[in-house]
Amino acid sequence: MQSVEAVRWSADGSAVRIIDQRELPGKFIERDLATLDEVVSAIQTLAVRGAPAIGVCGAMGLVTVAQRTLGGQPDFQQRLADVAAIIREARPTAVNLAWAVDRVMRVAAATPGDAEAGIAAMRAEATEIFHEDRRMCRAIGAFGASLVTDGSTVLTHCNAGALATSGIGTALAPVYVAVEAGRRVAVIAGETRPLLQGSRLTAWELARAGIPVTVITDNMAASLMRQGRVDLCIVGADRIAANGDVANKIGTYGVAVLARHHGIPFYVAAPTSTVDPATATGADIVIEQRPAHEVTRPFGVTTAPAEAAVLNPAFDVTPAELVTAIITDRGVFRAPYDFAGAAPAHS
Amino acid sequence: MQSVEAVRWSADGSAVRIIDQRELPGKFIERDLATLDEVVSAIQTLAVRGAPAIGVCGAMGLVTVAQRTLGGQPDFQQRLADVAAIIREARPTAVNLAWAVDRVMRVAAATPGDAEAGIAAMRAEATEIFHEDRRMCRAIGAFGASLVTDGSTVLTHCNAGALATSGIGTALAPVYVAVEAGRRVAVIAGETRPLLQGSRLTAWELARAGIPVTVITDNMAASLMRQGRVDLCIVGADRIAANGDVANKIGTYGVAVLARHHGIPFYVAAPTSTVDPATATGADIVIEQRPAHEVTRPFGVTTAPAEAAVLNPAFDVTPAELVTAIITDRGVFRAPYDFAGAAPAHS
Repeated sequence: MQSVEAVRWSADGSAVRIIDQRELPGKFIERDLATLDEVVSAIQTLAVRGAPAIGVCGAMGLVTVAQRTLGGQPDFQQRLADVAAIIREARPTAVNLAWAVDRVMRVAAATPGDAEAGIAAMRAEATEIFHEDRRMCRAIGAFGASLVTDGSTVLTHCNAGALATSGIGTALAPVYVAVEAGRRVAVIAGETRPLLQGSRLTAWELARAGIPVTVITDNMAASLMRQGRVDLCIVGADRIAANGDVANKIGTYGVAVLARHHGIPFYVAAPTSTVDPATATGADIVIEQRPAHEVTRPFGVTTAPAEAAVLNPAFDVTPAELVTAIITDRGVFRAPYDFAGAAPAHS
Repeated sequence: MQSVEAVRWSADGSAVRIIDQRELPGKFIERDLATLDEVVSAIQTLAVRGAPAIGVCGAMGLVTVAQRTLGGQPDFQQRLADVAAIIREARPTAVNLAWAVDRVMRVAAATPGDAEAGIAAMRAEATEIFHEDRRMCRAIGAFGASLVTDGSTVLTHCNAGALATSGIGTALAPVYVAVEAGRRVAVIAGETRPLLQGSRLTAWELARAGIPVTVITDNMAASLMRQGRVDLCIVGADRIAANGDVANKIGTYGVAVLARHHGIPFYVAAPTSTVDPATATGADIVIEQRPAHEVTRPFGVTTAPAEAAVLNPAFDVTPAELVTAIITDRGVFRAPYDFAGAAPAHS
């Protein structure tokens, strides 16, 4: 069950095909990225988003640009390095992007022969990253599906679904696999202010897959939990510290506290590559502050006076003690966390 | 300290002057309501909002219409009753509206002599309702101000400020009085999706009063509490059950749970008239469901797919055990609640 493919090769393999997420949920538009400008712009404007999807897009974008414009060039390696550096920096905070671009570049450097041979090897590597990402999603889904029983309602936050990966997502993967197994599952999507990834993206991809989904404003989660209408929570993660503390989209921590208060399991779903052994605890994670206008000028309408201060942290940190378990592509981990046996595939 | 007056007599007393809250925070527009259509429309379209302010507007509106159009009419009492019925029904859920209109009508019925004498008595009664409301706000502010110490940061939700009353508000009254007393107080205003009364109204009136205010999306409250950046919470109430359970704007309950988790006091500020002795507990309070488009089409932009279900409860219920104390115009009440000695002034 994969109703949408956020990033993949175009039909003839000459470009990167993405779903333009800026247009959702109003319009479903697929775009083929064929130039360096198109690749960088798509990443920077969030046409493609979600760390795994950005990584795949960057890798495929690098191959596309190399094949279209660098093939016959005498200074191929230098030009290739220049292009890679530009793609790599399109969104500096997304670790997967730099990792995927670097991985393709290592293959290029290690491939003897002409540019053509190098490009072929790069293409194979980018395709492998794509397939690894899809397998990662599948594995998270398989490990997590046992937690999603028949008739259950899952509350999620932001979008850690198919639109954030090249596969079936991370937080939503257990839902998709449970539904494939014939279970009836409903999802409550917190809209996720300020950028509304929950209502715009999660609700859209689930509705497209025929899975019942209900959109709520973030501040409704508490009363739904009190009414017994939430069986479990599953969210994604942007980074996981060695002790199990989880950085994820702003609002995640609040959901975790509410879940604890109501005795509802709170799961985090993420590839083991999201675990950063160099980050001891959540206190070491620097939280990116985003522009105030995302809060005060949604959709071009001013919703707060100019004199008011505004906070707009992109993420928050959920301490490990509020996390029931972490669902990864290598199994379901519970505290005390020991991710050593599950080192990131690309570490 | 009262930087705004949401509802009052116009300068010559011939109309009801309101601040048009639909235009805030972009534009500060005062309107004089002089006809029945203008009064009803202002209430129905939320140009004037907040239960106490609506009550005052309804009472003054009835007097205005009577004076302008009914004075010389032979069937004055019948026409007056017709007008009163229309105003009374403008927003059926706001208890204060019916209460204030009925109070003015009782005075009209009890006044001997001609229509002119009746209108004069009605005007005096509407003016008294206005002043009572202002005194109620002042009393809440005086009782609550001792809880707002120098240097403290108050988190509030929705707007229970001057804009919701004809005085200095309910939840914000302790803040205004503490600031008048020379204390430095900062406020964090949760934006309050879906209708954004926090960012549009609370932030606006506090900024106008020169009080530092910071706007956040509702889902940021948890992490600010965890960082120690919230000293106390004060919210308003739409209805308080006999046992102290509180119905208030959706999202209030979540703030209460988060406050409890972080050991932060959570206060409710409301006139004793908000206590409904006929409501034993919060379970007896029916929660109004509002239209889905408030969630999915903010500002005319579609933010969720048509296939998704939507929930939009206007209120939630906070159980008494999460409320540190209830600040009223007759003192600060703590559990176990006994409001008997503080029967509503207009019961």
